Amino acid sequence: MNLYPPPLTKLVSELAKLPGIGPKTAQRLAFHLLDRPEDDVARLASAMVEARRKVTHCTQCGHLTEESPCVICQDETRDKGLLCVVEEPKDVIAMERTREYHGYYHVLHGAISPLEGIGPEALRINELLARVRDGAFREVILACDPNVEGEATALYLVRLLKPLGLIVTRLARGLPIGGDLEYIDEVTLGKALEGRSAM
Amino acid sequence: MNLYPPPLTKLVSELAKLPGIGPKTAQRLAFHLLDRPEDDVARLASAMVEARRKVTHCTQCGHLTEESPCVICQDETRDKGLLCVVEEPKDVIAMERTREYHGYYHVLHGAISPLEGIGPEALRINELLARVRDGAFREVILACDPNVEGEATALYLVRLLKPLGLIVTRLARGLPIGGDLEYIDEVTLGKALEGRSAM
Repeated sequence: MNLYPPPLTKLVSELAKLPGIGPKTAQRLAFHLLDRPEDDVARLASAMVEARRKVTHCTQCGHLTEESPCVICQDETRDKGLLCVVEEPKDVIAMERTREYHGYYHVLHGAISPLEGIGPEALRINELLARVRDGAFREVILACDPNVEGEATALYLVRLLKPLGLIVTRLARGLPIGGDLEYIDEVTLGKALEGRSAM
Repeated sequence: MNLYPPPLTKLVSELAKLPGIGPKTAQRLAFHLLDRPEDDVARLASAMVEARRKVTHCTQCGHLTEESPCVICQDETRDKGLLCVVEEPKDVIAMERTREYHGYYHVLHGAISPLEGIGPEALRINELLARVRDGAFREVILACDPNVEGEATALYLVRLLKPLGLIVTRLARGLPIGGDLEYIDEVTLGKALEGRSAM
């Protein structure tokens, strides 16, 4: 016997497909939606469909955008010699939040990961090479994640970019601000020691 | 500067309105939806709108249903003398899962809670009285939650139902199956002692 009305069962199973949403949470969310005014539910539903339809990737940098090229690529006031390579659109936001970086971006949409079967050809590396080849950029900053996949990706990119006569840099490794020395893992502390600077 | 395209910002803020979904989770879900095929997103969106539009409450018992009266109320094979009063539609499902109960239901849609300003008039109590008054039911089982609000609701209902000449019962309090005596709270253990049965 079907204990819930079919549309509710369907909603629960659709919600349970979302990452991090188990069957219990899906049920809780579904009951919540049934209790909301019809307009609220329609607004959430159309926000989903609209975001999925309207938001695409910038053909140039790969960041999320409604129009291509995106606002960052169109921004003429930025430093035209600087290009920052990141793994995901989220990383663009993280860099922008620092308010310290004023160059352009290139989003790879992933990192090299042999374990997950993601090779260099799955990333936007050819697009990166096409952008830097004309010599417009003087420096490429590799802002890959500080983990195994990010390191592998950075090392792979250095081999491709260095021969083009570019300055290739990467973000410093060291102590996170606000951290507590005794709680910092030994690898980070080792990197911080290695990269120590004169005062 | 708006760091994300507006439709994405809107989707994140709509998702963050869901219970238990903070801004970080909302962002993660939004990114996930952008990565899904357009059909999948449309299916989730329409499941929401459809469930909200089609699923209503049974006019008789108050359970969730597409048509009123619901399948349970229409089921002629059930014990016509038994009525189980629960707080929420979820509790109907919980009772049905036991496969031990074969009567009908009445969903109150809440419990008396002076702290939250929910009085008896906010619950489907008049509907309950109308159903039991014609004498069709011989026993009413109060299956309110075993907490302060549920107890208050049960006590309130007993006062109304007893004078109608009905047998009014409630679910037993005691040890949960699979529990460990040493970890069971003292109130539950006290109730289990109080309600002990001869072997």
